[in-house]
Amino acid sequence: MKNRTLPQININRLEQMLSDFAQIGKTDKGGVTRLTLTKVDQQARDLLISISKTAGFKIRIDNFGNIFIRRNGLEDLPVVMTGSHGDSQPRGGRYDGIYGVLAGLEVLLTLNDFNIQTRHPIELVMWTNEEGSRFAPAMMGSAIFTEQLEIETAYKIKDKDGISVKEALEKIGYIGTDKVIGQPIKAVIEAHIEQGPILELNNQTIGIVTGAFGQRWFEVKLTGLAMHAGTTPVNMRQDAILGMAHCIVALNRLALKPSSNDVRLTVGMITASPNSRNVVADEAFFTIDMRHYDADLLADLEIQLRSELTSIADQLNLNINIQRVLSMPAIHFDEQCIDAVRKAVTKNHYASREMISGAGHDACHLSTIAPTSMIFIPCIKGLSHNESEAITTEWCQAGANVLLDTLLILAENGGD
Amino acid sequence: MKNRTLPQININRLEQMLSDFAQIGKTDKGGVTRLTLTKVDQQARDLLISISKTAGFKIRIDNFGNIFIRRNGLEDLPVVMTGSHGDSQPRGGRYDGIYGVLAGLEVLLTLNDFNIQTRHPIELVMWTNEEGSRFAPAMMGSAIFTEQLEIETAYKIKDKDGISVKEALEKIGYIGTDKVIGQPIKAVIEAHIEQGPILELNNQTIGIVTGAFGQRWFEVKLTGLAMHAGTTPVNMRQDAILGMAHCIVALNRLALKPSSNDVRLTVGMITASPNSRNVVADEAFFTIDMRHYDADLLADLEIQLRSELTSIADQLNLNINIQRVLSMPAIHFDEQCIDAVRKAVTKNHYASREMISGAGHDACHLSTIAPTSMIFIPCIKGLSHNESEAITTEWCQAGANVLLDTLLILAENGGD
Repeated sequence: MKNRTLPQININRLEQMLSDFAQIGKTDKGGVTRLTLTKVDQQARDLLISISKTAGFKIRIDNFGNIFIRRNGLEDLPVVMTGSHGDSQPRGGRYDGIYGVLAGLEVLLTLNDFNIQTRHPIELVMWTNEEGSRFAPAMMGSAIFTEQLEIETAYKIKDKDGISVKEALEKIGYIGTDKVIGQPIKAVIEAHIEQGPILELNNQTIGIVTGAFGQRWFEVKLTGLAMHAGTTPVNMRQDAILGMAHCIVALNRLALKPSSNDVRLTVGMITASPNSRNVVADEAFFTIDMRHYDADLLADLEIQLRSELTSIADQLNLNINIQRVLSMPAIHFDEQCIDAVRKAVTKNHYASREMISGAGHDACHLSTIAPTSMIFIPCIKGLSHNESEAITTEWCQAGANVLLDTLLILAENGGD
Repeated sequence: MKNRTLPQININRLEQMLSDFAQIGKTDKGGVTRLTLTKVDQQARDLLISISKTAGFKIRIDNFGNIFIRRNGLEDLPVVMTGSHGDSQPRGGRYDGIYGVLAGLEVLLTLNDFNIQTRHPIELVMWTNEEGSRFAPAMMGSAIFTEQLEIETAYKIKDKDGISVKEALEKIGYIGTDKVIGQPIKAVIEAHIEQGPILELNNQTIGIVTGAFGQRWFEVKLTGLAMHAGTTPVNMRQDAILGMAHCIVALNRLALKPSSNDVRLTVGMITASPNSRNVVADEAFFTIDMRHYDADLLADLEIQLRSELTSIADQLNLNINIQRVLSMPAIHFDEQCIDAVRKAVTKNHYASREMISGAGHDACHLSTIAPTSMIFIPCIKGLSHNESEAITTEWCQAGANVLLDTLLILAENGGD
């Protein structure tokens, strides 16, 4: 923090809260296992509510367990929302999600400390089941709040033990009766760890998030001929594994082309048949996860990808089948919200970059019903969904201060 | 067959015998499942013995179920052996192994037909468990006969149902008492289908087999870092699957270099971890099966292979571990035996090539105790270990005629 003028968040209190929540579901390697709607999720919810009650905030819980903690404004104007999720991956990190919740809570407490009034109310939300690890799909609470998923459908979704979302909500006592859907929202700002390596590698403390990548997922199957590894000369084969290797190298080359503009392209899953040491493979299967902000580029890359892979298959005398199995459009966050983040960063003199989220977040759903943006802070080595997930005190403080100033801009500081 | 002078084998009888044996363990797609020491293997043994008895040959069975069918020579000289195996892969082909047995039997019957006497006795052998599908390792009967495997060790080997080799031998009644090991052997000639595509693609009918490839097998493990597919730019990854793809492409390029002299190099087995669509893989594993006749080249290729793969891993910031898990020297067959095959081919005017076996055969073991060579005939599209395995009448006849003339050279035609 350089040349900061008051108010500023209380980093000691924020770090203490992060440490207290990290005890709830703590793993032996310093991460957390806090799957949604479990006993430990309930404990995290209880602690959040306890702190918020003490501070005098108004607490509402909707019928999907989303928790809304409101600090009133001077006027009855549309609310400025912030927050994130409290659940984690199995053996996940202690910052993913909960950082955004507690940075928001710290902002509300700081406003109390400094007796700052805002024109608009500010509402902190802890969304139910962002991770989707126990109940798929992910980002469920925000999907229901933004009416992209029917609550009756979601209630019936079961975990691997056959327990439904509704049963789990009832068991931890978090099916609320407050109707929050439909309230006027002025803006939404979610703070989150980056979950990638870009900020740290560029020595930047804040990511001003301008949107989220569109995604196209593919499944590719190559078919050749199973032959004896000893008796078949290498130039007489129809080797499906070799074809797959050429495809993966070509896809990487495509992704690294300057014209591909930092597309995220991943082959993460591979299988082969018969998958035997001394048999030339007759079948190879792999997946492609391709993400970019630019819809036109994504469409163009799909054309290039299909053309390149088909040409490789032809050259190696293989059959190829390319199926697109998922297509999600890119999300463009709201220019005024982004600008509020920019101003908050400038005020605080933090090194920053504008960036696009490669991962999905609750803010992506919220952007469909309200002006939205996000604030990223770095995480060490970009590690996330990992017990080793870590942040520095400096990043922790910077993210919460930027959130504070952004919310003050959007909720309009009415004076102290 | 062009300009052939008598004697020649009876192609109708040979094809009839091949057809009769193909009924034993026949599969619905025209192949056979005749695993070693099963009821159907017993039936094939019984039929072989029945035909041989009728023809007046002397039958011996050793304590591993290897069957020796002897046609006496004019003198008590070292024996000239031929034959192959009667067992098959599960859902295997109707020619793999049994062709060499029945071509040998047809030669003995032809010698009877033409009243030809040889100076040396000729002995047809059907070796037990060449495939190794039911009881590993493969080529077991010839390994025991050549004293490369202890019989007491082999007896104890069990199939997946817990039945031992000894129990299986007893059950089908083929533990013999004849001691054949140690008898003087002048030469061994095994006829076999090529199990590869080279002869057919070159319009050649006979392969004069000069040896068998040496083999080196490797296991390679690449280790990177698991990262989020959406948040990690492609140029900031340590992607183990990408590393594997580059390795497989480089290995193929190495195999196709003219200086690599038609090395057989196969990546047949691949796995990755976590093998998830939207996670950059932190681990990839693959196998390499590398075969060549030239021991120096094989050693040199191992050096090149290690250097190339290590360099790829370094460039992509991955750890690499390369383990050699198998090393078998090449086998050089006996020049006089090879020359006998050459002369027989020349006499018959068949299109031929000298070639090295990429697969292991009983003849490989026998070559360690006696002068040995092999005769290959083509199989359609090189398919083998496959129910579609097929040969033409022309090839079938050619192989048996070459075997006849080779055995006549080696056993020394004493006149008719």
